Amino acid sequence: MLYIIGLGLGDEKDITLRGLEAVKKCQKLYIESYTSLLSFGISKDGISTLEKLYGKPLTVADREMVEEKADDMLLEAREFDVAFLVVGDPFGATTHSDLVVRAKKLEVEVKVIYNASVMNAVGVCGLQLYRYGETVSLPFFTETWRPDSFYEKIQRNRGLGLHTLCLLDIRVKEPSLESLCRGKKQYEPPSFMTIGVAIDQLLEVEQLRGELAYNEDTLCVGFARLGSENQKVVAGSMKQLRTVDFGQPLHCLTIVGKTHPVEEEMLDFYRS
Amino acid sequence: MLYIIGLGLGDEKDITLRGLEAVKKCQKLYIESYTSLLSFGISKDGISTLEKLYGKPLTVADREMVEEKADDMLLEAREFDVAFLVVGDPFGATTHSDLVVRAKKLEVEVKVIYNASVMNAVGVCGLQLYRYGETVSLPFFTETWRPDSFYEKIQRNRGLGLHTLCLLDIRVKEPSLESLCRGKKQYEPPSFMTIGVAIDQLLEVEQLRGELAYNEDTLCVGFARLGSENQKVVAGSMKQLRTVDFGQPLHCLTIVGKTHPVEEEMLDFYRS
Repeated sequence: MLYIIGLGLGDEKDITLRGLEAVKKCQKLYIESYTSLLSFGISKDGISTLEKLYGKPLTVADREMVEEKADDMLLEAREFDVAFLVVGDPFGATTHSDLVVRAKKLEVEVKVIYNASVMNAVGVCGLQLYRYGETVSLPFFTETWRPDSFYEKIQRNRGLGLHTLCLLDIRVKEPSLESLCRGKKQYEPPSFMTIGVAIDQLLEVEQLRGELAYNEDTLCVGFARLGSENQKVVAGSMKQLRTVDFGQPLHCLTIVGKTHPVEEEMLDFYRS
Repeated sequence: MLYIIGLGLGDEKDITLRGLEAVKKCQKLYIESYTSLLSFGISKDGISTLEKLYGKPLTVADREMVEEKADDMLLEAREFDVAFLVVGDPFGATTHSDLVVRAKKLEVEVKVIYNASVMNAVGVCGLQLYRYGETVSLPFFTETWRPDSFYEKIQRNRGLGLHTLCLLDIRVKEPSLESLCRGKKQYEPPSFMTIGVAIDQLLEVEQLRGELAYNEDTLCVGFARLGSENQKVVAGSMKQLRTVDFGQPLHCLTIVGKTHPVEEEMLDFYRS
């Protein structure tokens, strides 16, 4: 059996009792590292906090491993109980459908244990989840690559009065260009898009497109480290949020649509 | 301090370690009953499963209490630690913004402990959450009240290739019409909309409106008891799902938009 277990958003205490029970039963534990492990309050050494709680060793599965060696893990899961631990929810912002599809093809039974995801935890600011339109991802702009397909989506959502959740780019274990040229893999240091960078990119695209999807006075809510003890939620205009120090990653951003009175009352508590 | 604690979707084992730790610290525990408690696998007597786990008594807070006597609970929370337990996530399908607003006005500190919500757990079928448009609610039709504002929203989502999550009506502790006339409150037995009824209502509205937002061949995914040991997920056309016995509540339904190949592969595992 393969257990795919959501760890929730904060730290080791956000696993559910059901999740922990499964972990205790499993003979081997993998933890995905390539999306948001660093933001989970654990450095590479910090893995030991989890290992202590679980009472057994963890294998960190980076992107390469999940993509290239998943079958090894799945073959193990045919023989005994294996857990694949995922920050947040297994089918939240990052989905693990690929792994499930491969498992089913190998006739490995899969059990999913849910947890909170950033996709629902943003509800804490009081904007109702059912008033969100399509979610967008903001990629890091480079000198030559500045994709802006998020612009139409935000425009459409705002036209309908809907809120837009913007997921901000995470770059972990990306091979450096230099190392690719040399044929030897070396990795860029991890980087996480801040709310400030996200707003700069959003405003840059608005200036280029000029279709008034939003502007620097548009109300937004910035979220940092949702679910952790020191989470930070601030509501304000793009201009205001740009200057707020949200601290450590992960960050994400909601562009507010039309609000109801209760939504407004809640947002007021988070005003910068 | 008022702790608003998400219990997750399945049963008592879906609380997080962080949530349980807070519960243990609190002197008084309330649990909201008016949305989805019955579906949480616990009857009124079953509350004792939770009480046994928590080691202390629970006060069931029905809609009346939350609306009329919230301030009593909040005044307690000024003096000592109080927990308000919520099935799913505190800001998922049902939001508790009202309570937070009242708490903040009374200067009661509030701490939210996240958990899975139906809003993210539907991800398990493989349809990606960021490809969902606005969520709709389907209310029980009566002879005289057949609101269909969900129709445009579904139409719009489908026009954009987006999936639509349909939350199905729950009627718990509704005063009966007869009792209202007699001036003495008596309650209707609780009722939960099934996927079959939802599809009948959807198709009735399509027939009336005739704008081809969807039809009986439109691909959907039905979910029952998400997160519990006996959850059921089935993909198929409206026509097909209408005849599936999904069993006990809660049910919800996704109307599928445009799919990506990985989404399709995943859905295939759930075909009826």
